[in-house]
Amino acid sequence: MAQRTRRSGGRSGRQQSDLSTVRNTSHYRRLRNPFGPIEILSADEVEAIHQASLTILEEIGIKVLHAAARGVYQRAGALVDPETHIVRIGGDLIETFMASVPPTVSLHCRNLERSLELGGRNIAVAAVGGPPNVSDRERGRRPGTGKDFRDLVRMAQSFDIVHLLSPSVEPLDVELRFRHLEVTRAQSVLSDKFPFVFARGVGQTADALEIVRIAQQASPEDFASEARCYTVINANSPLQLDVPMCQGIIDFANAGQLMVLTPFTLAGAMAPVTIAGALAQQNAEALAGLCLSQMVNPGAPVCYGGFTSNVDMKSGAPAFGTPEYVKAALASGQLCRRYNVPYRSSNVNASNTPDAQAAYESQMAIWSTLMGGCNLLMHGAGWLEGGLTASFEKFVMDVDMLQMMAEVFTGLPVDTKELALDAIREVGQGGHFFGAAHTLDRYSSAFYEPIVSDWRNYETWDEAGRPDAYERAHSVYKQTLEAFEPPPIEQAVLEEIDSFVERRTAEGGALPES
Amino acid sequence: MAQRTRRSGGRSGRQQSDLSTVRNTSHYRRLRNPFGPIEILSADEVEAIHQASLTILEEIGIKVLHAAARGVYQRAGALVDPETHIVRIGGDLIETFMASVPPTVSLHCRNLERSLELGGRNIAVAAVGGPPNVSDRERGRRPGTGKDFRDLVRMAQSFDIVHLLSPSVEPLDVELRFRHLEVTRAQSVLSDKFPFVFARGVGQTADALEIVRIAQQASPEDFASEARCYTVINANSPLQLDVPMCQGIIDFANAGQLMVLTPFTLAGAMAPVTIAGALAQQNAEALAGLCLSQMVNPGAPVCYGGFTSNVDMKSGAPAFGTPEYVKAALASGQLCRRYNVPYRSSNVNASNTPDAQAAYESQMAIWSTLMGGCNLLMHGAGWLEGGLTASFEKFVMDVDMLQMMAEVFTGLPVDTKELALDAIREVGQGGHFFGAAHTLDRYSSAFYEPIVSDWRNYETWDEAGRPDAYERAHSVYKQTLEAFEPPPIEQAVLEEIDSFVERRTAEGGALPES
Repeated sequence: MAQRTRRSGGRSGRQQSDLSTVRNTSHYRRLRNPFGPIEILSADEVEAIHQASLTILEEIGIKVLHAAARGVYQRAGALVDPETHIVRIGGDLIETFMASVPPTVSLHCRNLERSLELGGRNIAVAAVGGPPNVSDRERGRRPGTGKDFRDLVRMAQSFDIVHLLSPSVEPLDVELRFRHLEVTRAQSVLSDKFPFVFARGVGQTADALEIVRIAQQASPEDFASEARCYTVINANSPLQLDVPMCQGIIDFANAGQLMVLTPFTLAGAMAPVTIAGALAQQNAEALAGLCLSQMVNPGAPVCYGGFTSNVDMKSGAPAFGTPEYVKAALASGQLCRRYNVPYRSSNVNASNTPDAQAAYESQMAIWSTLMGGCNLLMHGAGWLEGGLTASFEKFVMDVDMLQMMAEVFTGLPVDTKELALDAIREVGQGGHFFGAAHTLDRYSSAFYEPIVSDWRNYETWDEAGRPDAYERAHSVYKQTLEAFEPPPIEQAVLEEIDSFVERRTAEGGALPES
Repeated sequence: MAQRTRRSGGRSGRQQSDLSTVRNTSHYRRLRNPFGPIEILSADEVEAIHQASLTILEEIGIKVLHAAARGVYQRAGALVDPETHIVRIGGDLIETFMASVPPTVSLHCRNLERSLELGGRNIAVAAVGGPPNVSDRERGRRPGTGKDFRDLVRMAQSFDIVHLLSPSVEPLDVELRFRHLEVTRAQSVLSDKFPFVFARGVGQTADALEIVRIAQQASPEDFASEARCYTVINANSPLQLDVPMCQGIIDFANAGQLMVLTPFTLAGAMAPVTIAGALAQQNAEALAGLCLSQMVNPGAPVCYGGFTSNVDMKSGAPAFGTPEYVKAALASGQLCRRYNVPYRSSNVNASNTPDAQAAYESQMAIWSTLMGGCNLLMHGAGWLEGGLTASFEKFVMDVDMLQMMAEVFTGLPVDTKELALDAIREVGQGGHFFGAAHTLDRYSSAFYEPIVSDWRNYETWDEAGRPDAYERAHSVYKQTLEAFEPPPIEQAVLEEIDSFVERRTAEGGALPES
C-alpha cells in the first residue's frame, strides 16, 4: 500500500486540525480502478443496443440546427435533408469515425503534477458543474455569484481527489458578456487543475481558450497538440443538436481540446420510458456528436457521456441515483468499452438538502459509475437538488465518499507481514492488539481517516451538541476556505492573463450565441 | 421485468397514501443477485489467507472454555491441552468437517410463502439485531423495552424486503429469566417470517425452540429436519470460544437449526491492524466454530459470518462502512465461495443519528456486501450508532436503500419492445415521450417509487416545511405501525404458545448461562 500522508489531530482534534494536510494526500491525484467492471448486459445485449442506435441514426436521423455542421456531415457521407435539417448517418460511417477516437487522452495542467490520463482504468473527478444556485448551511440557497464561483474553485483546488475544475455555479451577478472571462480567469489563477470552458459561441470560446493558453504558457502549436481544458456538450434530446452545441463540437475539435458529449436522456421524458430504449437513444445521440468531432478533426480528444436517468412519472420531476440510473450507468460503461472510448458519468442526487437521501442517492451513483468503469466522474463534489444547487457541505461529504472509494481502490495486500501471524501469536487467545508491535508500527496510517464522519460515542457526541454530518461538513468547508492559499503563478503570467481580460472587457467581451 | 405492485398516490399523495401496498411488494420476497461478485483477491491470495488460518488453528490454537466442546474437538481428532484449554485443529480435520457444511439451507417459515433459500446467489435480509437502545425522532434515544421489541417485529413484518427477524432490541424492562419467552412469542405471533433465537444457555434455547416448533406446528422430527429459526454465535476474538457460545453451537447443531458463526474481528483491537491479518484470524475462528457444529452433527445448517471492520486508531472506537470494511466484505465473500458455504455480512454504520453519514456508511456496506456475494445481510434495517441503537427511522431508510438494490437486481431487459424504436420514431426529433403510447402503457410501473426520497422541487419542498429524510422516514415509520395488522394465526396455535409461555413463566423461566 502506498505511503500516505494523514491528517493529524484525530477525533478530539478534528475541529482544530490543520486542514493543509488534507490537501496533501497526493495518492489521490491519480486514481486507478483495479476491479473488473460490474456488467449488467451480455455482449449480445450490448450489440443489440448498438444496432438499435445505428437504426435510429440511419432511419430516423438526428436534427442538426447548425448549417456548417450539416455540411460537415454531408461531406463525410451522411444524408442531409435540406428542408427538415435531419441528418441520417449510415452505420459504416459511424464505425469509421468512431475508430479515430483516442482511447485515452492526456489532460495537461499548468502544474504538471496535476496532469493526468483520461481513459482505460483511470478515474478522474470533476467538481459540480452548472447549477444556477449555491447553498450553505449558514446562508441557505441563493443565486450564484462570482464570489461563489471563486469559492467553489478554491474548494476544488483544496482536495486532491478532485482533478478537474467545472462551471461550479453560474455567476449570475457577472454580466453575460464578461462571464466567460471572469470564470476562466478564476480557474486559471486560483487553481492549477484542469479547467473547464463553456462552449457558448465562437467569441466566448476563443477568449476562454486564450486565457487557458496564457495560463499554461503554451505556444499555439503546443496548445493544439494536447488537451488543456474541456467542455461538455449536451444533446437536446431527443435526437437534436442545436447551434451552440454544434459550434462547440466544431470549435473544440479544431482546437484539439477535450469535448465530452453527453445526451440528456431522462427516461419517460426526453427518452423512452424503458432503460434499453433510453440507452439506444443516448447511444445514437452520443455517436452522432462524437463522429461530428472526428469528421472535423480525426483523433480529436472526446469522451462519451452517459447521463440516462428516469423521471418521477407522477410529476415529471427528474430523479437521480435511482435503480434505473444504476442500470444505465453500468450499461453505458459497457457501451464505452464496446467503442474503446473514455466514459463520463456523474455523482448525482435529487435531494433538496445534504441529508441521508443526498448521501444514499450519491452512493448509488458513485458505486455504479465507478464500478461500472467510469473514467470521468462529473459533478463529483457539490451537486445537490438534481443539479440546481451547488452545495458547499455536499462538496465536503462527496470528498469524503470519493476518498473512501479511492482507498478501496488501493486493494488488499496479502503477504507475510500483512497476514500478521507473528502478531496473532504474540497477542494470543483473548488478548488485544492495541499494544502489539505490528499495530504500533502501522496505526497512524493503517486506516482511512474521514473528514466528515463522526465516530465519537453517543455521550461525547451528545455533549458536543449532536452535530450531524451537515453541520460537520459545514465546519470543514469554512476551514478549507479560511486555510486556502492559491497555487503559485508567475507574476508575468498573471499580468498577461489580466491584461488580456482587461482588453477583452474594454472591447465589450462576447455574448453567448444560440 | 416482473409485474410489480406499486404504491398509489405518488408525490402529492405521499403523506396520505395507503402503505398497505408497500408491504405487498411480493417480488421482494425472494432476492437473487444476477451479478458476478466483485473480487478484491486473486485465487492465490484467497488460498494464502486460508493457509494462514490453518496455521493459526494448528500452531496457535483456539481457547475453548466449554468442557463438552473440548471433548467434541478431541474425539474428532484435535489436540486439546487440558491445562490451557487450547485446542489445536489440523488442516486435514478442517477440510473434512467443512466438506459436510450444506452449501444452501432451506429456511422454513410458518407462512410457507415466506420460506426461502439461503446460499448460492440468493440474498436474505435480517432486521437490526442486538442493540440495548432504541431511538426515534420523537422520543430520542432510550433503553429498549418489550414494546419496542414488538414494534420492531411489526416493522420487520411490514416490509417484504426484510426476510428474517432478529433480536431487534434488548427488552430491558423484561426480567432476564422471562425475556427469551417474551421475544420468541412476539416473533411467533406478530410475524410469519423466519425467527431468531438467542443461544443464551440450554434452558433458554430449549424454551425458544419449543415456541418456534409450536408456532410452526411441526412434530419434533419435522422440526429437526429443516431450519426453522437461527442464532448468531460471535467468537470472543481473538481466538476464544466461551461457554454459552460453545453451548449454542452444540444446541443448534443437535436441533438442526441454523447457526451463523461470526467472529468479531475489529482490526487494530481484537484482530491485527492489517486487513489480511484480521481476515486470517476471522477465518480461523469461523472455521473452528463451523467445524464444531459439523463434528456434533454433520450437515447441520450453518452460515459463515464476516464482520471484520476497523477501529478509529485515535480513540479505539469501532468504525463501520469504511473502506477497510468494504475490502474485508469483498474478501470474506471470496473465502465463503472457497468453502462453498453461505455468507453472512451486515449493513452497518457508526453514525449517532440517521444523517448523511449513516446513509453513506450504510451504502458502503450494502454495495460491498451484496456485490461481494453476501447471502444473509444481518442488521439489514435499523442499525445505528455501531449497533448500540435500533433506529426506527434508519429502519425505513434501509428499506428504501435495500429495495433499490432489489430493483437493480431485476436487471436490464433488452428486446424489441424495450428498445422502443417505434416510440423513438413516433416522438421524433425535439419532442417528448410523456404522451407516447409506449410510455402510457408502462408509466405506472416503469420505475422504482421510493418511500423516503423526496423528489419535489425546491419551492414545493420549502413550502412543505423542508422535511429532510429523517423527518420523512419518521412519518413512514409511524404510518407503518398504525397500519400494522398481524399475520393470521390459528386460535388453537396461539393458545398453545400462550399456554407454554404461561407454564414456563410459572416455573420461573430460565436464566442465561455464561
